[in-house]
Amino acid sequence: MAEEIAEKAGRDDDAFVLRKDRVREILLAINRGDSAGLGRMLDQLHPADVADLMEQVGDKTRHLLLRFWGRDIDGEILSELDEGVRAEVIEMLPDEVLSEAVLDLESDDIVDLIEDLGDEQKDILLDALSASERVAVEQALSYPEGSAGRLMQREVVRTPEHWTVGEAIDFVREDAEDLPEQFYHVILVDPKMHPTGYVTLGKLMSMPRAKPLREVSEHSFRSVPVDLDEAEVAYIFNQYHLISLPVVDSEERLVGVITIDDAMAVLDDEHEEDILLLAGVNEESSLSDNAIETTKLRLPWLGVNLLTAILASMVISLFEDVIGQVVALAVLMPIVASMGGNAGTQSLTVAVRAIATKDLTGSNVWRVVSREMVVGVLNGIVFAAVMGLVALFWFGSSQIGLVIAAAMIVNLAVAALAGILVPVTMEKLGVDPALASGTFVTTVTDVVGFFAFLGLASMVLM
Amino acid sequence: MAEEIAEKAGRDDDAFVLRKDRVREILLAINRGDSAGLGRMLDQLHPADVADLMEQVGDKTRHLLLRFWGRDIDGEILSELDEGVRAEVIEMLPDEVLSEAVLDLESDDIVDLIEDLGDEQKDILLDALSASERVAVEQALSYPEGSAGRLMQREVVRTPEHWTVGEAIDFVREDAEDLPEQFYHVILVDPKMHPTGYVTLGKLMSMPRAKPLREVSEHSFRSVPVDLDEAEVAYIFNQYHLISLPVVDSEERLVGVITIDDAMAVLDDEHEEDILLLAGVNEESSLSDNAIETTKLRLPWLGVNLLTAILASMVISLFEDVIGQVVALAVLMPIVASMGGNAGTQSLTVAVRAIATKDLTGSNVWRVVSREMVVGVLNGIVFAAVMGLVALFWFGSSQIGLVIAAAMIVNLAVAALAGILVPVTMEKLGVDPALASGTFVTTVTDVVGFFAFLGLASMVLM
Repeated sequence: MAEEIAEKAGRDDDAFVLRKDRVREILLAINRGDSAGLGRMLDQLHPADVADLMEQVGDKTRHLLLRFWGRDIDGEILSELDEGVRAEVIEMLPDEVLSEAVLDLESDDIVDLIEDLGDEQKDILLDALSASERVAVEQALSYPEGSAGRLMQREVVRTPEHWTVGEAIDFVREDAEDLPEQFYHVILVDPKMHPTGYVTLGKLMSMPRAKPLREVSEHSFRSVPVDLDEAEVAYIFNQYHLISLPVVDSEERLVGVITIDDAMAVLDDEHEEDILLLAGVNEESSLSDNAIETTKLRLPWLGVNLLTAILASMVISLFEDVIGQVVALAVLMPIVASMGGNAGTQSLTVAVRAIATKDLTGSNVWRVVSREMVVGVLNGIVFAAVMGLVALFWFGSSQIGLVIAAAMIVNLAVAALAGILVPVTMEKLGVDPALASGTFVTTVTDVVGFFAFLGLASMVLM
Repeated sequence: MAEEIAEKAGRDDDAFVLRKDRVREILLAINRGDSAGLGRMLDQLHPADVADLMEQVGDKTRHLLLRFWGRDIDGEILSELDEGVRAEVIEMLPDEVLSEAVLDLESDDIVDLIEDLGDEQKDILLDALSASERVAVEQALSYPEGSAGRLMQREVVRTPEHWTVGEAIDFVREDAEDLPEQFYHVILVDPKMHPTGYVTLGKLMSMPRAKPLREVSEHSFRSVPVDLDEAEVAYIFNQYHLISLPVVDSEERLVGVITIDDAMAVLDDEHEEDILLLAGVNEESSLSDNAIETTKLRLPWLGVNLLTAILASMVISLFEDVIGQVVALAVLMPIVASMGGNAGTQSLTVAVRAIATKDLTGSNVWRVVSREMVVGVLNGIVFAAVMGLVALFWFGSSQIGLVIAAAMIVNLAVAALAGILVPVTMEKLGVDPALASGTFVTTVTDVVGFFAFLGLASMVLM
């Protein structure tokens, strides 16, 4: 039976997603309390998929799963879990299971696991480590959260820069036991331990033994300081197509190396943060949060939005008289605000993305601002014409048509400007431009939209 | 002088971004028409940075730059450029420069470069290639755009699966001339050329020569079909922490390999697409487009928004009578719509992101939908209470307070539901859930918001 499943799993090449039928079988085993069957099925899955499964099921199912199978959980599954679920799972595991699970992890994964835990759990995990590993982890934890130092692995394959290819090969073969799980370069260091270059394993294997390492060092070589922000690290990997990146301390000495798979995960996290922040969702929210947690995370932003919406309403209330006389204004006014909000969001999103990819810099910011301004005015003219005609035919009043046309041009121009200036200013102030920019921009477009439309209307119509 | 610059550049370790002063010097050289100085400075930069610079400057400066320096442009710069600017640059380069530039690229980069060109330019580039390279490129172009086949490099290091570590090492050393620029694994194949495993170069270097390759093959080994969507490929790399991924044809034969740096670039592009589509910005838009191009790309979406805004206005116009009598309704009604729009966008963005990361699947969709529903009602109750009181004190009418409170609960619940059901439905229909979902959701929240608020008001107040 076990063999049959193994064979099936082996052939099942395209099952990169958790397949529905497999999930159903697993849920069935959980409900039956079939520990053995559950274990067999979960062992077939990649740790990342087991983690996904644990995130996707509800609280109760997750608790049952841990009850029947928790003792077999391995460290990789823990390190793949979302922070929220991970904290919950760790809470439920007996200390000895936890200590056991952590033993097969590399130091950078242990750091990632440990950094979000409470002090008590942290101590349990640290106590489970060997003395040298513990020093490594505590050293890493001394670097700021979200820095290169937290991301790097300390296990580095390095050689003196004056060695030859042959010497490096022999060194690697002799040192085989202590090699890290993952390494793609041999890093060259000078006598002061400053990294001066790196050679890919491919080059090492294919070059003549007598060749000096220096001559086959990659042009792409660069290093980063240990306190560099991880978002910058991800950017550097993507921009320069790196596979690994040496990390140096304040004295430029080699202290570790970051590999691209970790950088890719950071890139993905940064994107998640941007897209969620732009929508006013707390970046720590997760699909596995329950309804109460989710409500708590979403409330603050809706609260801010309520304040800005009230502000816009106060603008409207300035013009109650004219609205009372010409109710058509109440009908049309949301159109001006809505178009401004959308145009502003377009500019804003382009700007936030361009700031993240460093495409929007001091060198071109004024060119982009003036472009957005021209785009705003052009869009304004187009939709002023369309909406002016619509209003004319709808309400049979050329005055209302002219008022909405003029307000549209004003609001779309302002929207374009706000859409780019708000995130650029946030960035200058050191605030994440994805955060709060959206609310700022739509507040501006609501207020300006209502004020321009109703203000013009009260001048023209009264 | 050249040496001085080189020395400065060498020391300038943290200059990962184009520094302002350097850009200024380059712009100065362009304006002076100083070809030699320009060449010296540009040669110091990484091709990716030269490409960024070319995107950041305006049209005119870019043309001058190409005039003074275009003959020295290399293929890597072309392959780093955004599609829009790249087409423009290729248009301006003499055929022989173009042919020359392409010669130093790997086949996957040539494919990436060539796939967006017109037929005439495509032919010029294809003619510049060697016969074998041309076959490789044409073969890759026969796979669908955005597929694994376009992304992979055809240069693969493979060995029979029954070989030992020693045999593989000797093979690599003998074959040194033909090795691809980048490779991190030796791929094992059976006699029918089906890939059956892979061994990292690190393992190869550290294991005893007599060890069978099969015994040191990585557990992470998997392969993908040549027509798999590149977004799936990026997902697989990130999910399973892969470094390279073999690609097979419909008969499961090895045809190429994808490396993680290309997958990381795809991941980044997919994110860009999601974030832009969510904001109603055409995914092909770029910061280097001029104002007219940008306007054209943004207009369609604003047009759709105008239609939906008019629809919402038509809902309002159904209630002109009650608004004419109680102008306070006109003042308050945008608040209900705005809160619904924001809550809907929160749910929507979480759902779009979760679909992209495969966290939202058939297994948990109903759990997430019911969670969102509860969150919507809870948020609705909170803001109903707040806004009810605000309206009561503002307009001194408990009836208006009750009406807005009730409308708020209805609209936030509907917003939460629409925010999740719209993208899930889009996904089922095979449409990118990031596209158009936003407009759908805010149309729903506007229409429901105005209808619930004004409808209740006309029942209660008239």
